[in-house]
Amino acid sequence: MHFCDLTIETKVYLMEVTKEDLMNGSVHLSEDERACIIIDQTKLPNEELYLTLTRAEDFYDAIKRLAVRGAPAIGICAAYAMYVLALHKNAADTASLLSEMKKDGDYLISSRPTAVNLSWAVKRMLAKAEENASCDPADLVSILRKEAIAIHTEDIEMCCRISEYGLSLIKPGDGVLTHCNAGPLATSKYGTAIGPLLLGKERGIEFKAFADETRPLLQGARLTSYELDKAGIDVTLICDNMASMVMKNGWVQACFVGCDRIAANGDFANKIGTSGVAILAKHYGIPFYTLGPRSTIDMNCPTGADIKIEERDPDEIKEMWYEKPMAPKSVKCFNPSFDVTDHSLLTAIVTDAGIVYPPFEENLKKIMKDK
Amino acid sequence: MHFCDLTIETKVYLMEVTKEDLMNGSVHLSEDERACIIIDQTKLPNEELYLTLTRAEDFYDAIKRLAVRGAPAIGICAAYAMYVLALHKNAADTASLLSEMKKDGDYLISSRPTAVNLSWAVKRMLAKAEENASCDPADLVSILRKEAIAIHTEDIEMCCRISEYGLSLIKPGDGVLTHCNAGPLATSKYGTAIGPLLLGKERGIEFKAFADETRPLLQGARLTSYELDKAGIDVTLICDNMASMVMKNGWVQACFVGCDRIAANGDFANKIGTSGVAILAKHYGIPFYTLGPRSTIDMNCPTGADIKIEERDPDEIKEMWYEKPMAPKSVKCFNPSFDVTDHSLLTAIVTDAGIVYPPFEENLKKIMKDK
Repeated sequence: MHFCDLTIETKVYLMEVTKEDLMNGSVHLSEDERACIIIDQTKLPNEELYLTLTRAEDFYDAIKRLAVRGAPAIGICAAYAMYVLALHKNAADTASLLSEMKKDGDYLISSRPTAVNLSWAVKRMLAKAEENASCDPADLVSILRKEAIAIHTEDIEMCCRISEYGLSLIKPGDGVLTHCNAGPLATSKYGTAIGPLLLGKERGIEFKAFADETRPLLQGARLTSYELDKAGIDVTLICDNMASMVMKNGWVQACFVGCDRIAANGDFANKIGTSGVAILAKHYGIPFYTLGPRSTIDMNCPTGADIKIEERDPDEIKEMWYEKPMAPKSVKCFNPSFDVTDHSLLTAIVTDAGIVYPPFEENLKKIMKDK
Repeated sequence: MHFCDLTIETKVYLMEVTKEDLMNGSVHLSEDERACIIIDQTKLPNEELYLTLTRAEDFYDAIKRLAVRGAPAIGICAAYAMYVLALHKNAADTASLLSEMKKDGDYLISSRPTAVNLSWAVKRMLAKAEENASCDPADLVSILRKEAIAIHTEDIEMCCRISEYGLSLIKPGDGVLTHCNAGPLATSKYGTAIGPLLLGKERGIEFKAFADETRPLLQGARLTSYELDKAGIDVTLICDNMASMVMKNGWVQACFVGCDRIAANGDFANKIGTSGVAILAKHYGIPFYTLGPRSTIDMNCPTGADIKIEERDPDEIKEMWYEKPMAPKSVKCFNPSFDVTDHSLLTAIVTDAGIVYPPFEENLKKIMKDK
């Protein structure tokens, strides 16, 4: 992928996303290092649209409307935002640059206040700037550039380690079922849940992937099946309610899912429907793994019962995507965005620091102590 | 509901479906007994459209494009078709009427050759006609009218008995989860799976219903939630992958589902996703029942492994209902229309002749012997 004639005016362009591009995530620094380039995830799989982000409003808008989504991808985007915005200010003195950066940071965070990685990345960039308040503006911008690239690089390394550990759990030809999306679009490289399949593919090891479509937002259909297909992996898309039959048919040797938050006892929150997949896997005797970085493990959260689950708009079930509503206006919906999977259903937790087996309470403590 | 100025020309009219109408199913003989009236199920829940069927092409079209669907409803519609078509022929002699009826029957059956109740009803009407080949045409038409009404009445009685038995299994205030659609639209009265809730409601007993939306064809959203809402029952629509969380929350005291075919050992085929619901129910310790008439029990089919499952068009998953496709063209889908639920997951089978508990092999034999 080459971004040659990139100018601040360039906003949107259509361009085929190649396999190589996708394997490096959905967020990048432009070749001239003066803009952040993202794949617009809201347009997939029908349009492959790149957005060139240079202004604070561009970043705000991209994060708010989920053009960039996935915790790691949002963090990387926010880090590049802080650098790119600082660069374009051409500030005369460092004090005014720092003051402007704080305003930009608050503005960016307000685009999606619950996104933990967004505020984490903004705060890390601001802290770096403050540490270097004695530099002149040009040097500070250069330090910010390095810090943003470091955030990006750390995520790539995290993806590689998780993928490597995950790959050790499956055999060539295995069928792997996944739910929702935790692939390269959401991260910086292979992703987490489907990382082992993508890393395996690079090494010439073939797997058969099954992607749950993941109602109501269809991330499995729109994003995961797109990513796996792009990578040349044998992928079959199914409705969420078909997972039982696919497992019964003997087509699945392991389940790999992402995670949004892991409690100290191994209970974890992930996209709604994950706990159902785990129960089916247990019934059919199929190993069930969650894959995620150690930053997802919250030792201050004792069990899954302490994780608050957000409820979303009922119209996501009844109306979203459709030409006409699919249920009467007067019918109510229950639309939780996540569910909690009990640790008793979990074979192991695959982290960037190794594979954690039960007893989780004990073994998670160990892995977090080493951090 | 009154059909006053009904003429052969009347084809389609919009009219609110009242609770009382709906509780009597979706297929009726018109008030003047010269046409068959159906609710067009393809237009629900957005439009409540009645169709007046009088010509062979009307019936063929309604069955083929699923304006009438649900095995019992199709059977009733086909029975009325055979009577209405015979009536409008004004035949001069019985021999030519019989010969015409055979042609009509073949034509109707060809609209949906795999619908067992369609050919069953057509054949029963033809057999009745042949038994009475010595009558004059007017008398024969009158006999056909009675036979069609008998088919309708028998289904009403079946629904009432199943609903009554099912109602005995739940307590006031219970939460009941259902999958797909086996309500009045598909039958002649309360339906099977949601029959106990509708019968209970008539007696002033309140329940809390949870309707799985049932991907990919969304019968739970479009039809079941519509029926329950119309009946004034507290209904919550969920995506299929939310059933685990709803059960975990303690909101479900029983699962009621329909059935397409029950094998001699109690294994049964029903809409895709049913086996997943059964596994979740077992995990959470919730009783799981299938409800259906004895005609669904096939003693010549030893186990679920002998039930062939039809695969449907992948575009039902990727494209149907949507403005744009939700997955890349190159991604393949697995789209089975049914799955088989193992009898070990089943608390009991609720039939029109009583509730059958394990051991199913033994107890199904008993109930079929009494038939």
